[in-house]
Amino acid sequence: MKKNTQKATDVVIIGAGPVGLFTVFQLGMLKLTCQVFDTLHDIGGQCTALYPEKPIYDIPALPEVNAIDLITQLQKQIAPFKPIFHLGQQVNEVTKNKNGWLITSSRGAQVQAKAIIIAAGAGAFGPNKPALKNIEDYEGKGVYYSVTKREPFKGKRLVIAGGGDSAVDWAISLADLAEKIYVVHRRERFRAIPENVAQMKSLAEAGKVELLIPYQLESLEGDASGLKAVNVISFDQEKQVKRIEADALLSFFGLSARLGPIAQWGLSIENAQINVEPTTCATNVEGIFAVGDIAHYPNKLKLILTGFAEAAHAAHAAYTVVHPDKALHFQHSTSLGLPPIEA
Amino acid sequence: MKKNTQKATDVVIIGAGPVGLFTVFQLGMLKLTCQVFDTLHDIGGQCTALYPEKPIYDIPALPEVNAIDLITQLQKQIAPFKPIFHLGQQVNEVTKNKNGWLITSSRGAQVQAKAIIIAAGAGAFGPNKPALKNIEDYEGKGVYYSVTKREPFKGKRLVIAGGGDSAVDWAISLADLAEKIYVVHRRERFRAIPENVAQMKSLAEAGKVELLIPYQLESLEGDASGLKAVNVISFDQEKQVKRIEADALLSFFGLSARLGPIAQWGLSIENAQINVEPTTCATNVEGIFAVGDIAHYPNKLKLILTGFAEAAHAAHAAYTVVHPDKALHFQHSTSLGLPPIEA
Repeated sequence: MKKNTQKATDVVIIGAGPVGLFTVFQLGMLKLTCQVFDTLHDIGGQCTALYPEKPIYDIPALPEVNAIDLITQLQKQIAPFKPIFHLGQQVNEVTKNKNGWLITSSRGAQVQAKAIIIAAGAGAFGPNKPALKNIEDYEGKGVYYSVTKREPFKGKRLVIAGGGDSAVDWAISLADLAEKIYVVHRRERFRAIPENVAQMKSLAEAGKVELLIPYQLESLEGDASGLKAVNVISFDQEKQVKRIEADALLSFFGLSARLGPIAQWGLSIENAQINVEPTTCATNVEGIFAVGDIAHYPNKLKLILTGFAEAAHAAHAAYTVVHPDKALHFQHSTSLGLPPIEA
Repeated sequence: MKKNTQKATDVVIIGAGPVGLFTVFQLGMLKLTCQVFDTLHDIGGQCTALYPEKPIYDIPALPEVNAIDLITQLQKQIAPFKPIFHLGQQVNEVTKNKNGWLITSSRGAQVQAKAIIIAAGAGAFGPNKPALKNIEDYEGKGVYYSVTKREPFKGKRLVIAGGGDSAVDWAISLADLAEKIYVVHRRERFRAIPENVAQMKSLAEAGKVELLIPYQLESLEGDASGLKAVNVISFDQEKQVKRIEADALLSFFGLSARLGPIAQWGLSIENAQINVEPTTCATNVEGIFAVGDIAHYPNKLKLILTGFAEAAHAAHAAYTVVHPDKALHFQHSTSLGLPPIEA
């Protein structure tokens, strides 16, 4: 029952993107404890998963910051509060009880909290999977949606599917390591940095990469030990099928977000956003707040910087839920400093 | 009529504190032009004038930043938009006309704008002046409320009035330069860094500084050419008067804020704050917005970070005032980049 240990905290935050992380800080400044859940395996949300290298220009007093550096800075800012993260798991259920809310994750983690702040951005992110029969059977045994280490692909025959930056970048990056690389894409044009597309095409001319264009994935072959071959079919009238003996399929069709179980919690939701009162970020369900891109109110701006302010408002509003009897005496961080953290 | 040149801009911002500065950025991202007024001679508002060295902990993604560095960062961030500042002058009048608003400053500057965003913090800052007859006559001619250069005080006889850091610091700093320094303070205790108070007292023992304690300022003497003498009176039963021949009085009784002329513009004001709608920061007067500490709505938090978000909301709302016919197509800074600036 190790995964099922029930813990108590003041506030559970759903979402470890920039706004979720800053919510940790705001709660910490009010001496509220919290625990954070995210479906991704890393903190940072879209900043880490979708555009780590992209410069952001509109974070106040950071004239230009890469998304990943923004997350590093926030991580440093919240470190004094020793936040507890439950990563790689979705919050499946929130159940009202006499002490507040019992939160249960897809991995069986349970946390009891007085309040919940949803900072889930566009929702829970997962890879867009190609519609191939039994693809789940090969996941981790030949089918991958992201690459964390190059080494395992040394001397392997790889099929890379997709037409974006990930497909192009990994075709280039793995070209000198893999035995053979096939790039499968439905059309001539790649939606990637032109310089990189040109480089991939030079590799193709040099025979290091084989471009299968216009082709798409058709089916997978393999056994219990893993993937053995990928069948592709030409994306034209011919519908020509080719069988490619391969050790791995790297499938790069982007990530997409789904609201997931949040949709079932009785919250007022429109266009995949949760309606909140703008100055408290309170939802229609008492004790549940929403901040950042997932929160909606009239004149909402989907900006990280407005999400930060929403985090402050939600933290203050959550305080009155956690301590209904205590008045909150407001102090600036310059006067307050960072509160002493209990070990 | 040089000071009276009338210029046109999209938006006038009143207040060059951190929130006013970030408003420049937000307007710039929407390709709106702006001009900024502030009563202080430097940008940065309270951050620069009151607590430049104080660390701030709650600016998102800046775990610890001194107030003055925060301003430097914001200055860098808005530089691409080449903002026009009118410093050292108060906005005295805003007059509605067919093109929007005509803004007139205490120094006669006039700017025509479509909208006004008030980011005036606690109000207009000015020095607390001692209640001395005709003190205004000597301002700049022997009476000073701040020191920008040490050089003009070389070989002069100076009266420094006040018991805070400024009085103590300048007494020390000018001791080796001035012919004679008198420090006038009503009580034994100084509200300044103890090490510096000790240093000033050593200078007094060495005869470089003369402490007049417990004394206060009583009257000024001089003529059209400037200050000649300062009369002080003992702050006790004796009420002993001393006449000090002096070339300059440095009066350091701190800064204080006043709403000033803003109170006369027909805005809904309570407790020296302007009531606004929280998601647009619109005041009750069409075309005038308020952001930051001077703006009020239910659950308002007087934080710099929430002021930043208010700046974003006000800028978007001001866009519809400046361009009532254009729809604003929202884009993230990562996609948009910094817009090309016209020279």
